[in-house]
Amino acid sequence: MIIGVLGPGGSYSERAAKLWMRKNDLEGAELRYFEDIEDAFLAAVRGKTDLSVIPIENSIEGSVGVTLDLLREDGAVITGEVVVKIEHCLLSKGSPEAIRVILSHPQALAQCRHFLKMNFPHAELRSTGSTSHAARLAGEFEEMAAIASPEAAEKYGLKVLLSNIQDRKENHTRFIVVRAEGSGKYSPSCCKEAGTEVDKESARIRSRCKTSLIAYLAKDRPGSLYGLLGAFAERGINLTKIESRPSKRELGDYYFYIDFEGSASDALIKDALEDIKAKADMLKVLGSYPALGNSEA
Amino acid sequence: MIIGVLGPGGSYSERAAKLWMRKNDLEGAELRYFEDIEDAFLAAVRGKTDLSVIPIENSIEGSVGVTLDLLREDGAVITGEVVVKIEHCLLSKGSPEAIRVILSHPQALAQCRHFLKMNFPHAELRSTGSTSHAARLAGEFEEMAAIASPEAAEKYGLKVLLSNIQDRKENHTRFIVVRAEGSGKYSPSCCKEAGTEVDKESARIRSRCKTSLIAYLAKDRPGSLYGLLGAFAERGINLTKIESRPSKRELGDYYFYIDFEGSASDALIKDALEDIKAKADMLKVLGSYPALGNSEA
Repeated sequence: MIIGVLGPGGSYSERAAKLWMRKNDLEGAELRYFEDIEDAFLAAVRGKTDLSVIPIENSIEGSVGVTLDLLREDGAVITGEVVVKIEHCLLSKGSPEAIRVILSHPQALAQCRHFLKMNFPHAELRSTGSTSHAARLAGEFEEMAAIASPEAAEKYGLKVLLSNIQDRKENHTRFIVVRAEGSGKYSPSCCKEAGTEVDKESARIRSRCKTSLIAYLAKDRPGSLYGLLGAFAERGINLTKIESRPSKRELGDYYFYIDFEGSASDALIKDALEDIKAKADMLKVLGSYPALGNSEA
Repeated sequence: MIIGVLGPGGSYSERAAKLWMRKNDLEGAELRYFEDIEDAFLAAVRGKTDLSVIPIENSIEGSVGVTLDLLREDGAVITGEVVVKIEHCLLSKGSPEAIRVILSHPQALAQCRHFLKMNFPHAELRSTGSTSHAARLAGEFEEMAAIASPEAAEKYGLKVLLSNIQDRKENHTRFIVVRAEGSGKYSPSCCKEAGTEVDKESARIRSRCKTSLIAYLAKDRPGSLYGLLGAFAERGINLTKIESRPSKRELGDYYFYIDFEGSASDALIKDALEDIKAKADMLKVLGSYPALGNSEA
């Protein structure tokens, strides 16, 4: 089995993939590294990898826009999730006084915005495809530093000048495991049917599983989102996330990304999805998968 | 009157402020330039400017996270909005073949992600506080280019190598006009009361005005967002935007940012806000202001 991640080695995506592999007894799988999130994602959809592990949401900086956009691609299915604790470090070959350039992925730069403004107001900020790519580049000159993981420091021979530099101590990133529709390479087994009853036992079974979808509601239909959410509320289904993302057609026109508890193989959820299909102008069910919660808290 | 914007001169924020000033007969106001969005925003809240014009949402890349976070600051009020058409250009002193470094604001780099990947896969990407700051820096070396406005090209003596390079031709950014609570420096007059009837005429009056709020719903309360949206749906109030933003406390814990039609001085809206106050764990009404739509389409 080949699993794609954002590379090079030492990225948080690599850490997420290894954690997920361990939890799923897939430690023999081979990791393949990609230059950016889009390449890693599309590799899975186009069958160049069996699965790819992709960052989707950070507890400080919010959703990863490019990942949300890619989920609209035909044939992209979510088959798992994993949460990784993020402890950004400032890495360099040189000393803190010498730093003139700081490199990292834009999400990491944003997660450390206050730190950078307070401590390095005059440093030049460079965007890289990943935090580990930043660490690799920072090895070239003493005046450069990277914001990346401790693993990246070790891998690229850099010193950890400062640890835990993000603006909030608590920092987690959620990754999704993506595969091509119909590939069947990995099908989670724990999403068993919970029964149609809205009782505590069914809710407990249901909470172990998550389903993700994208719905499009035509602009200027008052109450349409309310109607859509009614399909969940009336059935006592718990939403874990709702997020809007521009359709890119015009300002004020959005797709809604919704995560909720339960599996699409569950009769109650099937019924809710039928209801949503009738109410939305477009519906894409992205998949059902085991909800792992804070798996590395 | 002093109006704060993200600087230096030649920024899209400057264009937005000038457009808003023209529409509101405030062309005599003085512009003051700030190094980043946070400084421009807080200047208004702390009374260093009378108003500040701040980017909040782009039709390709979505919300500006730092602006959403700043709106939770005590005393920040929204008093207007303005929409600007964005046509990013590639600006340089040198030729396209010589470009080794491309500078811009992270939002602009994200709006041109595909363009950059296709045309300059090996260029180094540098993040700057604004697009115009990128243009000013790009004037230093021929191997540098900036992604910025045509005004910035003129201001900093750069050539426009390519126009309209963002990933979608249609590209608009919405800016908000922010002031300190109770400053009364600018109070929009058009938000007149629409009456409590849910009829076409009232809806027409109401649609000329917008109110923005932030609500917090404690995690794991099934159906709580549905209940909140019911306060709007039951009264026929049209939502124009709903967006979630991490609370930064833990993954899966969000604030909801909601824009809807109508003024908070309107009896029907007052009633809805009372209802929401009772349902939400926190409510901040950010202000009511004239809805301008695509004011520079």
